[in-house]
Amino acid sequence: MLADLRRKHLEFKGFPTLWLGIDIGGSKVAVALADADGRIRARRRRPVDPAGDPSDELARIAADARALLAELGAESSALAGAGVSAPGPLDAERGLLLGPPNLPRWQGTPVAPWLRDALGVPVRLENDANAGALAEWRFGAGRGRRSLAFLTMSTGVGAGLVVDGALLRGRAGNAGEIGHVPVVWDGEPCACGLRGCLEAYIGGAAWTNRLRRAAPASSRVVELAGGRERITPEHVLAAAGAGDVFACDELARYNGYLARALVGLVFTFAPELIVLGTIPSAAGEALCFEPLREQVRARVWPVLASGLEIVPSALGPELADHAGIAVAMQGGASERSSSN
Amino acid sequence: MLADLRRKHLEFKGFPTLWLGIDIGGSKVAVALADADGRIRARRRRPVDPAGDPSDELARIAADARALLAELGAESSALAGAGVSAPGPLDAERGLLLGPPNLPRWQGTPVAPWLRDALGVPVRLENDANAGALAEWRFGAGRGRRSLAFLTMSTGVGAGLVVDGALLRGRAGNAGEIGHVPVVWDGEPCACGLRGCLEAYIGGAAWTNRLRRAAPASSRVVELAGGRERITPEHVLAAAGAGDVFACDELARYNGYLARALVGLVFTFAPELIVLGTIPSAAGEALCFEPLREQVRARVWPVLASGLEIVPSALGPELADHAGIAVAMQGGASERSSSN
Repeated sequence: MLADLRRKHLEFKGFPTLWLGIDIGGSKVAVALADADGRIRARRRRPVDPAGDPSDELARIAADARALLAELGAESSALAGAGVSAPGPLDAERGLLLGPPNLPRWQGTPVAPWLRDALGVPVRLENDANAGALAEWRFGAGRGRRSLAFLTMSTGVGAGLVVDGALLRGRAGNAGEIGHVPVVWDGEPCACGLRGCLEAYIGGAAWTNRLRRAAPASSRVVELAGGRERITPEHVLAAAGAGDVFACDELARYNGYLARALVGLVFTFAPELIVLGTIPSAAGEALCFEPLREQVRARVWPVLASGLEIVPSALGPELADHAGIAVAMQGGASERSSSN
Repeated sequence: MLADLRRKHLEFKGFPTLWLGIDIGGSKVAVALADADGRIRARRRRPVDPAGDPSDELARIAADARALLAELGAESSALAGAGVSAPGPLDAERGLLLGPPNLPRWQGTPVAPWLRDALGVPVRLENDANAGALAEWRFGAGRGRRSLAFLTMSTGVGAGLVVDGALLRGRAGNAGEIGHVPVVWDGEPCACGLRGCLEAYIGGAAWTNRLRRAAPASSRVVELAGGRERITPEHVLAAAGAGDVFACDELARYNGYLARALVGLVFTFAPELIVLGTIPSAAGEALCFEPLREQVRARVWPVLASGLEIVPSALGPELADHAGIAVAMQGGASERSSSN
């Protein structure tokens, strides 16, 4: 109550109390404004043209931000800072994208400096795994936890690691690249050029290729997709829910390889909590989380198994709005980076 | 020069400038006194009786500490603090040993509180992997680095992880348990009860068992050991140095499994530096470090491979003296622990 009054007073005095979050994906951009408590107050989402000019896109993002401020009747001086979540690789320190596979024209684009100039506020940039980890820690499944690992599992597979509220970055920002931990030594070729990486087994692109190759014509997966060449992981989830044998085997295989990587993560990083995004969240408890927890718990020490929490993203489809906000708010927090 | 004068002045004024380091191993105890710069000024080592009473042993350690102070002509008020390195598992926060396999009688011994009462100074306790990591970071191969992983490789295999000068502990102190990362899924049984752990392939106990089973009678390893049942890893190192085929194959196998775990570590934690203790240090550059570096570099991304340093412990046999000292000096540093 007093806090509310104080905030209204600060807003009245023009004290900056809004945070801007920007999520740049391979196909969509989300821009959101949140208040000092992280509540989303205004948002917009729109498609991005991967072949378009990044400068034009950044200008549209800045215009979106101004439009959202106007929508709230707020001055631009109300903005405390902005955060951008974008696909890696990127240089967080200098605020540059470095050749994200789905946005090839953005190679070398100085996203953070450009937006800093356009908006006149501090702008921080993080890759989507790190931004998602901060968002789940600040607003989602990880609230009040000291450490967590957040896994993004779409086309690529990566993790953001948070310890005591700060990102664990590692050398050149490469900590948490769990998608490239070997789960089968000398195994399947990965898009990254190595072999046996987790991503080569459960990454959306690799898995989709496999499904289109391996699905029997009689499978419900093919029926749901309307043809083998149109299968996506979502069809497997739907078919597994209906008890289709091929789909259930595929989900078990998915969980099996994911468990291998999570066992390694638990023994290396020992997080309080593991938060899984995207595909497993969609698969739900019965299809994914319980079988996965059982496998991981059986392969780590009892002292680690007993308290091990593996949960879906609490933010789900709202993650895109919160990711950039969490990055923006991190401005005041200490960082645990290793050198670049 | 001025620093020297100032230290002498502080010593004259009775300002505490000495740090006590204690290393409790399965067969030996090392007690050392270091000055404010971490230079060892006095030390003693003696055997420990694993079947002896821990209270008697702690009383001997306290007596050793007083004798070393007397040897330097220093008052006990000159002692700023003490640190203990001991085999895990242990409870660093409460200063207790928790059933170290080679010191079964020490189960539940409150090592840090006991020594605190006896010596009248703050006493910190860390497991040997963490203490070794701090020692290499402060005095050894990791000086000036922001992050490192230090691997202990004797009977057991473990790692201490340092980020920005603080230990990464993980939940219940279980970060860095790299000896139990699976390197072969459903592989060899490990003494810990799981299967396929790194330790089941390269741990001293597991490797020794294998060597005694597998060494051909004609191998130089058997000849050097004076009988198959007396083989230790040291005989493999010596025989490999002389070109023995079985020994060379065994070292290659050792490096191969170690590389699997290091690749996972690099993609998860991305340290600036990996420091290897014990067996690899003894094997040296040609037998171990170059083949190991080659394998790891070939299995990580070029951006990670190019700057990846994998080096032997710089402290080597002096590690036991420095481990406790580094733990003691950590008293003033911030900690990055996760909750217990």
